[in-house]
Amino acid sequence: MFIHAEAFWYEAMIETPIAEEISEQDRSRRFGEVLLVLYCTEKVDDSDPRGTARLAAGEIRKYMSKIGRKPIVLFPFAFLVSREEKGSASVAGQMGPMIAQELQGDNPFIVPFGWYKKFSITSMGHKYSVHASRVQVGTDS
Amino acid sequence: MFIHAEAFWYEAMIETPIAEEISEQDRSRRFGEVLLVLYCTEKVDDSDPRGTARLAAGEIRKYMSKIGRKPIVLFPFAFLVSREEKGSASVAGQMGPMIAQELQGDNPFIVPFGWYKKFSITSMGHKYSVHASRVQVGTDS
Repeated sequence: MFIHAEAFWYEAMIETPIAEEISEQDRSRRFGEVLLVLYCTEKVDDSDPRGTARLAAGEIRKYMSKIGRKPIVLFPFAFLVSREEKGSASVAGQMGPMIAQELQGDNPFIVPFGWYKKFSITSMGHKYSVHASRVQVGTDS
Repeated sequence: MFIHAEAFWYEAMIETPIAEEISEQDRSRRFGEVLLVLYCTEKVDDSDPRGTARLAAGEIRKYMSKIGRKPIVLFPFAFLVSREEKGSASVAGQMGPMIAQELQGDNPFIVPFGWYKKFSITSMGHKYSVHASRVQVGTDS
């Protein structure tokens, strides 16, 4: 899910067993206008994480062609799919860095993976301010 | 998707062809702590909107048993499913009032349907602060 946000912040609150280690600085971050990418991997993505990341990066670029080039924040967000559809935690954890690699020049920030986070999102409110997107290797969208 | 929010506000910005008429007062609203229910109907729900609303109300009650009883805000949010899965606009438009009826005593506020909205959501940040839920008549969840 893409959100063209006017403002976004998060604070990592509670570690889960799959939490990545983070620096004190990354415990909490505040952003102004960004393209916020809330993403979640599904079981079908586990067989080709790299291909999935490539498709995701393509979708991000397509969305940016609508709203203009913005700083990108990748936000691992497990709540987009049901528990049964969810992919493996290890693939989910790699997905942020892999999408970042595929985006190359855009150098996105990745919100810490595996933490319960407090967050605040304020959307821009224009027509393309929120956009749903789902990619799967081997299909058209 | 349920969000136990510390704060939520919206502003109705742009009418779509399926926009409901709203009072000046409902054009923009600000809330403190609420249970925010972002929902979207799917094609399969079109055959039994009332049954779907009943299941949704049940899920809301179940979630409230975790976070405590809070004022409820129902937020029609078309971006939870892909365009192909989305239910009819007329059922989607009725869903808020129908869930509200099923909730009876809790008297939720319904965010205007069919408008592009600017919004801001701040989560509480505890373990159950965000929760994904999907219901379908005739299935278990």
